[in-house]
Amino acid sequence: MEYDGAGFAGFQRQRGRPTIQGEIERAIGEIVGRPVRVAGAGRTDAGVHATGQVASFTTESRLGPDEWPRALNAHLPPTIAVVRASVVPDDFHARYSARSREYRYTIVNRRARPAIGRQYRWHVPQPLDAEAMHAALQSLVGKHDFAAFAGDARRHATVRTILAASCARQGDEVVVDVAADAFLPHMVRNVVGTLVQIGKGCLEASELATILASCDRSRAAATAPPHGLCLVRVNYGDLHL
Amino acid sequence: MEYDGAGFAGFQRQRGRPTIQGEIERAIGEIVGRPVRVAGAGRTDAGVHATGQVASFTTESRLGPDEWPRALNAHLPPTIAVVRASVVPDDFHARYSARSREYRYTIVNRRARPAIGRQYRWHVPQPLDAEAMHAALQSLVGKHDFAAFAGDARRHATVRTILAASCARQGDEVVVDVAADAFLPHMVRNVVGTLVQIGKGCLEASELATILASCDRSRAAATAPPHGLCLVRVNYGDLHL
Repeated sequence: MEYDGAGFAGFQRQRGRPTIQGEIERAIGEIVGRPVRVAGAGRTDAGVHATGQVASFTTESRLGPDEWPRALNAHLPPTIAVVRASVVPDDFHARYSARSREYRYTIVNRRARPAIGRQYRWHVPQPLDAEAMHAALQSLVGKHDFAAFAGDARRHATVRTILAASCARQGDEVVVDVAADAFLPHMVRNVVGTLVQIGKGCLEASELATILASCDRSRAAATAPPHGLCLVRVNYGDLHL
Repeated sequence: MEYDGAGFAGFQRQRGRPTIQGEIERAIGEIVGRPVRVAGAGRTDAGVHATGQVASFTTESRLGPDEWPRALNAHLPPTIAVVRASVVPDDFHARYSARSREYRYTIVNRRARPAIGRQYRWHVPQPLDAEAMHAALQSLVGKHDFAAFAGDARRHATVRTILAASCARQGDEVVVDVAADAFLPHMVRNVVGTLVQIGKGCLEASELATILASCDRSRAAATAPPHGLCLVRVNYGDLHL
């Protein structure tokens, strides 16, 4: 599924606040006539977007995979769209079956603020050295304790494996792509916040590895804003949805 | 300059309605303290976007080209941004000095409606044959009477030269690019409307040339909606702004 996270308090259901999960469960409930719980692959933060989120649920409905997206989209707000549906094995769980997730963070890097697509990109007016950012990012690839980049390290095991990471300039955009087995809350935004300090020349490229090794959140820079971030893909190994 | 055309009645100033020209002239007037008129390169329709619009004006202000964008952006709504300013020769006129304009029309071509970027793309749920669309489009390249694709042919000379045109699929997007010396009102949207009929298989690819030759607006299909269209570039020959 795809969504514009701007009007939502994140993916995960919260009482009394608009969430993606809440909207999806409401829509399915309206279609099947009983309450349904969904499992989401990635618990995106408030304001974070998705073009490749995946959610699973169990139903006895006779609607087929071709009919579900149309039925759901008729019950969802314009900011959420179900792109595709598949029948999956009984033991499939959108979150626990996922092998990896891919996020993209998009920066507009020019002096003038953007008018187009400003909902989906962080504006950084100071010139960024995307090559230095890319080089620094490579030190995060592999299995590490990412406590220094965790939103709330006390509540989570903080070891994750980054499978691939890149940063590249495309015209006046600087695009950061990160794939990992799983992500900690705020992890990509915390990495991007520090990476931008490197891109500006305020931090040495080698500092990213030093901050990682410190496991100390207070060493990393401020969290990048949510609206530049998008969950673009969830991978399930041999299972192609 | 860049703008999101959604909230505007087009580029051209109109009494009592929000327009891009009106906003730009107001912003310059607030900065220099007297009324100023600007000339725009392309008179985009209501709802049409731009990432490469150009406007020119004469001023005795001491602000330099580095200072103008920042000053203007502080006086413009978030949906309009001035990206760059240049000092130009006295005989420069954004509209009359322009050698060519480039427009891009973006279609989301999949069954599910889009949630992300739906402000900037036309949703066509039926499968489109982008190769057939590209082949058809080639018949428009060159100097022709485009009366069949003119919004209001009675008011305009209708001969224009299309310099290049392409249509290509990029994932679930179909992107149409057209460059011409100048465009008639609604011309790109009328071409795209007919092209989509070809892409759906409702019209033969050869029909585009037949409709062009007829010079008869009633032969072309319905006008594509404005929100998929964007003025991406204006060229001034050797003068690089």
